[in-house]
Amino acid sequence: MDEVINNLILDEWKIIEDKFIQENNLKNETLFSIGNGYIGMRGNFEEGIYNKEFTIEGTYINGFYETHKISYGERAYAFPETGQSMINIINSKTIKIFADDEELLVDKSKIIDYMRVLDFKEGTLKRSIIYETKKGKRISIEFERLASFTQKHLCIIRLSLNSIDFEGKIKLVSLIDGDVKNSISIDDPRSGSGILDKAFIIKESKIDKDILKMKIKTKNSGLELLCTSKNILKFSKDYISYDYKEEYKIGICYEFNIKESQQIFFNKYIVYITSRDCCEHDMDDISSEILNTAYNKGFEKIKYEQMEYLKDFWYKSDVEIKGDLHLQQGIRFNMFHLLQSTGRDGKTNIGAKGLTGEGYEGHYFWDTEMYVVPFFTFTKPEIARKLLEYRYNTLDKARERARQMSHKKGALFPWRTINGEECSAYFPASTAQYHINADIAYAIKKYVEATEDFDFLREMGAKILFESVRIFADISHFVENKGYCIDGVTGPDEYTAIVNNNAYTNIMAKEHLKYAFDTAILLKEKYISDFNNIKSEIGLEDNEIDNWKTISDNMYIPYDNNLKIHPQDDTFLSKKIWDFENTPKEKYPLLLNYHPLIIYRHQVCKQADWVLALFLYSEKFDIEQKKRDYDYYEKITTHDSSLSPCIFSIVACDIGYIDKAYDYFIKTARMDLDDNHGNTKDGIHAANMAGSYMDIVFGFGGFKVSEDKVFFKPALLGSWEGYSFKVNYRKRLIKVSVDKKNICFDLLEGEDLTIFCYDNELKLSKNKSYIVDLER
Amino acid sequence: MDEVINNLILDEWKIIEDKFIQENNLKNETLFSIGNGYIGMRGNFEEGIYNKEFTIEGTYINGFYETHKISYGERAYAFPETGQSMINIINSKTIKIFADDEELLVDKSKIIDYMRVLDFKEGTLKRSIIYETKKGKRISIEFERLASFTQKHLCIIRLSLNSIDFEGKIKLVSLIDGDVKNSISIDDPRSGSGILDKAFIIKESKIDKDILKMKIKTKNSGLELLCTSKNILKFSKDYISYDYKEEYKIGICYEFNIKESQQIFFNKYIVYITSRDCCEHDMDDISSEILNTAYNKGFEKIKYEQMEYLKDFWYKSDVEIKGDLHLQQGIRFNMFHLLQSTGRDGKTNIGAKGLTGEGYEGHYFWDTEMYVVPFFTFTKPEIARKLLEYRYNTLDKARERARQMSHKKGALFPWRTINGEECSAYFPASTAQYHINADIAYAIKKYVEATEDFDFLREMGAKILFESVRIFADISHFVENKGYCIDGVTGPDEYTAIVNNNAYTNIMAKEHLKYAFDTAILLKEKYISDFNNIKSEIGLEDNEIDNWKTISDNMYIPYDNNLKIHPQDDTFLSKKIWDFENTPKEKYPLLLNYHPLIIYRHQVCKQADWVLALFLYSEKFDIEQKKRDYDYYEKITTHDSSLSPCIFSIVACDIGYIDKAYDYFIKTARMDLDDNHGNTKDGIHAANMAGSYMDIVFGFGGFKVSEDKVFFKPALLGSWEGYSFKVNYRKRLIKVSVDKKNICFDLLEGEDLTIFCYDNELKLSKNKSYIVDLER
Repeated sequence: MDEVINNLILDEWKIIEDKFIQENNLKNETLFSIGNGYIGMRGNFEEGIYNKEFTIEGTYINGFYETHKISYGERAYAFPETGQSMINIINSKTIKIFADDEELLVDKSKIIDYMRVLDFKEGTLKRSIIYETKKGKRISIEFERLASFTQKHLCIIRLSLNSIDFEGKIKLVSLIDGDVKNSISIDDPRSGSGILDKAFIIKESKIDKDILKMKIKTKNSGLELLCTSKNILKFSKDYISYDYKEEYKIGICYEFNIKESQQIFFNKYIVYITSRDCCEHDMDDISSEILNTAYNKGFEKIKYEQMEYLKDFWYKSDVEIKGDLHLQQGIRFNMFHLLQSTGRDGKTNIGAKGLTGEGYEGHYFWDTEMYVVPFFTFTKPEIARKLLEYRYNTLDKARERARQMSHKKGALFPWRTINGEECSAYFPASTAQYHINADIAYAIKKYVEATEDFDFLREMGAKILFESVRIFADISHFVENKGYCIDGVTGPDEYTAIVNNNAYTNIMAKEHLKYAFDTAILLKEKYISDFNNIKSEIGLEDNEIDNWKTISDNMYIPYDNNLKIHPQDDTFLSKKIWDFENTPKEKYPLLLNYHPLIIYRHQVCKQADWVLALFLYSEKFDIEQKKRDYDYYEKITTHDSSLSPCIFSIVACDIGYIDKAYDYFIKTARMDLDDNHGNTKDGIHAANMAGSYMDIVFGFGGFKVSEDKVFFKPALLGSWEGYSFKVNYRKRLIKVSVDKKNICFDLLEGEDLTIFCYDNELKLSKNKSYIVDLER
Repeated sequence: MDEVINNLILDEWKIIEDKFIQENNLKNETLFSIGNGYIGMRGNFEEGIYNKEFTIEGTYINGFYETHKISYGERAYAFPETGQSMINIINSKTIKIFADDEELLVDKSKIIDYMRVLDFKEGTLKRSIIYETKKGKRISIEFERLASFTQKHLCIIRLSLNSIDFEGKIKLVSLIDGDVKNSISIDDPRSGSGILDKAFIIKESKIDKDILKMKIKTKNSGLELLCTSKNILKFSKDYISYDYKEEYKIGICYEFNIKESQQIFFNKYIVYITSRDCCEHDMDDISSEILNTAYNKGFEKIKYEQMEYLKDFWYKSDVEIKGDLHLQQGIRFNMFHLLQSTGRDGKTNIGAKGLTGEGYEGHYFWDTEMYVVPFFTFTKPEIARKLLEYRYNTLDKARERARQMSHKKGALFPWRTINGEECSAYFPASTAQYHINADIAYAIKKYVEATEDFDFLREMGAKILFESVRIFADISHFVENKGYCIDGVTGPDEYTAIVNNNAYTNIMAKEHLKYAFDTAILLKEKYISDFNNIKSEIGLEDNEIDNWKTISDNMYIPYDNNLKIHPQDDTFLSKKIWDFENTPKEKYPLLLNYHPLIIYRHQVCKQADWVLALFLYSEKFDIEQKKRDYDYYEKITTHDSSLSPCIFSIVACDIGYIDKAYDYFIKTARMDLDDNHGNTKDGIHAANMAGSYMDIVFGFGGFKVSEDKVFFKPALLGSWEGYSFKVNYRKRLIKVSVDKKNICFDLLEGEDLTIFCYDNELKLSKNKSYIVDLER
């Protein structure tokens, strides 16, 4: 703990706030969120807060959403009609505290000592406060909260309250509270409070001794959610307890007298379950069982399991950055939040903001496949698989969408969704991003390559690949002197829309077509009955498969012979370059200050587009080419998207622009901790978090898998003493440690493996370190 | 009257319906609308209709609108926030008729005889019905209705009721009815009945003897409207009258006993005035005065003035098509409706549907300058001027819009509007159509050329030209080997959006820049003080003016050397051609059956885009070039826009494709009469109506003004015996008559004029006919 940034204290394994600063609270509630990929709870105060402006009470269940009609000033054919929003659900965090009827609140009471800690090793949010009452008496309070990684429906809050010198009556009110609403409303001034304010009705609300139970049902999507909580007070003296009921709230009140140095403990076991998890009729039984099991285990045991889970996670994935505590804290914070945010049941995914806020309505984007899947592929591949299974499970909806978009065959995945249906309302920057299909294919390829999970490929992956590639086969058309062209799409860079031959889309489609073809060949050779089943199920013809190869082989990738760079699309280079010089700082991000047309009219990028392709297909371009492309695009990229800097950093590593790589990495590693985009209050930037991991491993570490070979090209920065990272690859766990002089490879798990480090071919075996001299 | 089409009887000067057919009524209410450019009344039945499904009661005042918030699923910077809709206002048409308490209704009572007639010479809607009561007694009823062309605030309805063999009590109820709403609601299921259902409140509602008076105020736009009506019953016998009052309606009831062969007359004088016409406080006084003047004049006198007005109109503008009554009826119907629909006070304009229905929310588009202004320029130039004055009067709003769109100088006119503010909600097909600025400039140039109205040019026109051209100067940028380019715009063809170098836009901008430059030179030479005033008012620099010339001289007009045609834009020709062969008929118009992206991805045109340029700048291209361009675009144009066929017809005339020209003309001339687009119920297609006139005059007549010279190249079609048209040009009135053998020129008004007809130079003088032998 050597420095305070943004009122956070630096630490290797934690983030720590030691002072309550009102203005930072919305952001810090996001940072201190806990979650387990199913439940997410913002880092709100259990005892409450006086000034509601400075809090967003938030509890979210992954995949639990309400729908609403999308409004359009002018509607057109196949515009999505129904939007989805992850909704703020029953708040079970609240435990109000009164000392002699004086309510203790962080922003109203006198505070002697204060600490809020998110612990990446424990997987807990811990808070300790010493309150001083109006009469000058002190009470020490500690909260510990976790969302269990081993039982996704379970959360626990533990309160210990200690009287330092207070003598008198303490009242605790433990609530579950259905009086919640989303803080970000759909952008429609008329709907204002209409849509997501009271998105649900309360179907049941019951207090049964120490158990609170509330069941809700959303008004339009018809989803049900049950929240139960078991409340246990441990106090050696007498206390009374009684029920608390309001229209939207239920609770249990506890009253007792406490003396100097006396202590009480209060455990609140909380279970959330929804009708997306099981049959509605089973929700009560399952919920009771989980609650009882948890209660029987007790807090300590559950916390132990939490720590064991994390021990394993960090063992398999940890990244160390030696000599830079800022970055060390940043990268672990990012990895920890990814683990907290990502659905792992095949029915849910990871929202752009995880489960920490309501930005982007909780929607899932391409961020998953291009950022988060690679992270899990090399750290916790079972989660990567579940993310891909989500696409498989929504394949039917993607097929429907393809039909709406006049594609006779195939599946077109949605640009943004929760339940698998497209719910983008501005198609030039959403539905037009056909690259989503190829992004998913890319992630499948990389996942299968890294895991050899051919079961996934033949059971699910191939069907996704074949159905989604058909869209590219449909829209590609041959143009003399060019090759196969793809018109009317938008690439990742949303500052240019609806163009012909977006270079990124074309290369991604080319590789998707090739991989689909290769997969068909592989299945035919090795899994013929699976192959035949798929063929008959989706009506796939042999000539279709051959056609994929033909199109792939002849896909047009735009190239400018004059500048010797890859233009972003057919007409990009003929546009005026944005007048950066005369654009004041406050006019960024451009999308909030210029009409889209003005932006589209210029050479200006929101984010890496072709530069992303340079990373993904690094091996296809020589270094001079990559430098020319990079140099060109860097000058005109605003990085208004949080997905951009990490990619620029990775490519900078590849082409030896180490200083640039470092500068971008800083922005990436601590984007949310330092609130670089000013909107962390609405939730974390999940894709960037995964990007910071990718930056270390693929960028600085130079890790790459290509044609079944594993490559590393680690680089070291002057200011770092060293760094290390781990890679899970085909049941091996490889640790790579880099210091000023050496690169050290350790095979921690698995069978022998040959790798390549620069020019060295190393055959790694377990329990032996391999050193490559960096200076040599 | 030789044939019945679509239940309409053919006639040279009228449209006639002699049978009530329920299914045709919505459309026919549009066709039988009366209006005077200020008031529009659909051809509804005064006595009412039983089945409300088959009527849209509609009364509209040009420029009288309500505003509403525009909803967007995803909003972006500078998206218009407020929409405008021309609203259905107080209905004053109703005169209910009861015979012995039996209400007479066209779709419920027994009808012996029926006629509805719109008369283009009288400017009246006349209806006659013989009703038979349940007891088998007959009453003959005649209605005559007009909206005065000489006093825009005034309408009159005259009823004469004649008992054939009915004896008993007749009750008349003359209403003004505020219980109205728009039939087409904004496309937002949630707002449904919210926005335009009850768009106003009733501020005052009063019955004073024979005068009914109702004042309303719109809820958001805050506009006021006063409707007054004076009701006069003429009956030789006794009658009683008494007031009628409901929450939203007021009226006067008349009861009397009538015998066989007895007749009564009932006149209803109606005045509408709004707070856009005068100070709110003066509305009552002005309204009374107009009402009294009208009453003192009486119906016959007012009708006489109406006929005189139209006599003059037809004298100056009539088009004859001999030997084809269908087309003769069609073209006069079109011209008459244009006269009825067009605002002429400088504060209003002409909506896409005139004042006959609620389609396109009553918005004004480029239709005005490219279709309607040319019509009036050569028939009634004082109205053309008023349409252009409208743009001058909304210049400040166009300046504001330009600032919103990040143009530091100049004015960007709205794509659709009533009050001058942009209210398009889908920018790729609206705000992106920057050609609107050049369209206005084109109309000004043609108007000034035809009228020599230099007062308009120096007082208003120049300022419009200079301010609007600045936008093109701003967005044009020089590209090596091409010239000045314009990126990120949409041309008239909305089946391709947001492209670079739309050929139409570029040539229009080129000519706009040139005309602005020439106008600056002209003003400098002839009206230096006006010029200096404008310069200082808008901060215009000399180098700006020079720059206009430079850009114009070097504007890039895309050309494909391979196909030797003008591509619609930079990338148009590289797209896939739409699969017309496999597109069934019911999939047209494409925009209602395909997502915009699918359409944008293909070579397919909704309407004439470059072909329009071939018409406007015919002299710039040789005939072979025009043929190649025409042939190319004709194959891929769906004419899903009603603005398209007339232009194709005109260009077909120019290049000698007479059969094609004729086929397109048929679609054009009777588009609404035959309900070709199936949506005439929502209002007429005003631009197409003007297009049919242009087709005769510019197309078949080959009339063109170029560099102060007047050219004609009349063609004749085999099936026509002949045709004639008139052209007002620089205070001359020229009549051109074409028959199988000859072309005859008559100068009906004005000083001698030299014209060119094919290779002949003719010096026309008054009272002398000039014959050119067509067969020579």
